[in-house]
Amino acid sequence: MDKNLAIVLVSGGMDSCVAAAIAHQHHKTAFLHVNYGQRTEERELKAFNDIADYYRVKRRLVADISYLKEIGGSSLTDETRKIEKPKPNSFEIPSTYVPFRNTHLLAIATSWAEVIGANQIFIGAVEQDSSGYPDCRITFFKAFNQLIKKGTKPDTYITIMTPIINLKKKDIIIKAMELIAPLHLTWSCYKKNNKACGVCDSCFLRLRGFKEAGLKDPIGYENPKC
Amino acid sequence: MDKNLAIVLVSGGMDSCVAAAIAHQHHKTAFLHVNYGQRTEERELKAFNDIADYYRVKRRLVADISYLKEIGGSSLTDETRKIEKPKPNSFEIPSTYVPFRNTHLLAIATSWAEVIGANQIFIGAVEQDSSGYPDCRITFFKAFNQLIKKGTKPDTYITIMTPIINLKKKDIIIKAMELIAPLHLTWSCYKKNNKACGVCDSCFLRLRGFKEAGLKDPIGYENPKC
Repeated sequence: MDKNLAIVLVSGGMDSCVAAAIAHQHHKTAFLHVNYGQRTEERELKAFNDIADYYRVKRRLVADISYLKEIGGSSLTDETRKIEKPKPNSFEIPSTYVPFRNTHLLAIATSWAEVIGANQIFIGAVEQDSSGYPDCRITFFKAFNQLIKKGTKPDTYITIMTPIINLKKKDIIIKAMELIAPLHLTWSCYKKNNKACGVCDSCFLRLRGFKEAGLKDPIGYENPKC
Repeated sequence: MDKNLAIVLVSGGMDSCVAAAIAHQHHKTAFLHVNYGQRTEERELKAFNDIADYYRVKRRLVADISYLKEIGGSSLTDETRKIEKPKPNSFEIPSTYVPFRNTHLLAIATSWAEVIGANQIFIGAVEQDSSGYPDCRITFFKAFNQLIKKGTKPDTYITIMTPIINLKKKDIIIKAMELIAPLHLTWSCYKKNNKACGVCDSCFLRLRGFKEAGLKDPIGYENPKC
């Protein structure tokens, strides 16, 4: 077992890029990316590999769980459903919620960690200032840590790390600047594969974060509405 | 939401067949099968469909998580590793343990349940008289129920049901007889696809169960050593 080895879940977005930068400070890292049949799968995979190249990460795993597309229930995976405009002050769970998705991602990371002897799994989940997905809350990750204790070998010790869970988007961007994280290589848009739309939930939160940080987003937008 | 709808995880083996029979008593059922790159994948899928036909289940989902084969760490998915002979009185976790596998299966079932509005997920896990896998213990399923509460929508209520967790193999077989569960359609062998080997861990436990129940296994064996 290598106590210094950590797995980072890298979607290709800004949050996971900053989580990778934080993990990279004190750990050797292995990067995991999961395709789940989301609309921008191909573009996100490119971002994943670009970020992995930036950090010179050799150990990479790309897992496919496209059965989530078959299961459906989300506008992210079901192209017949419309991605609604963001409702920043709403408590409603947005249609982009992919049912129980983070459990799938963390299950893959945990199985891989148990085999390669990694003790930590970094995920760039954000509870505050986010979309309100139930599987992005601190209580969810605490419950997952309990599950790992119960469901792995007695000599396996793996902890889920959520280093940016309480940060606002603005502070995530400032953190990225501090750590020279390659935000120019990241992809956040839920809708497009070539140029970010600028209006979906994810673009909206990203653009608002840059605005609040007083910085310019290094990627271009079709229609930067924020 | 249909309170009477339950998902059953049907591997194609004897335990899940009995779990399906129990679920079938009081629920409409949807059957889920997961391929994870195990050696006998094709044969298990046939057993799954045969059992689903027997119960006339229309709603079926077959999910592929063959990344577990890529992750490895188990003699079930890695054909370069030998499947050892059973050690009935050992506390050692056998090489057939697939790291954290049941989390993957239950995650798929939970996502599907949330979308189709099922309230219960039946799994034929057995803690007693089994192989000692950590993710087959009651404490693991309790932790998973907590995870569901934390990681799904506020109006989602899903519970994992483990109706045979405390049964011995002998009693599972007797239960199958009571419920006229189609054990003749099931497949348990870890090694073979045509005729069960009769010597692997899984065949050993099955054959011992039939012997203790004083019954004859309806499937044939190459070498029924028990």
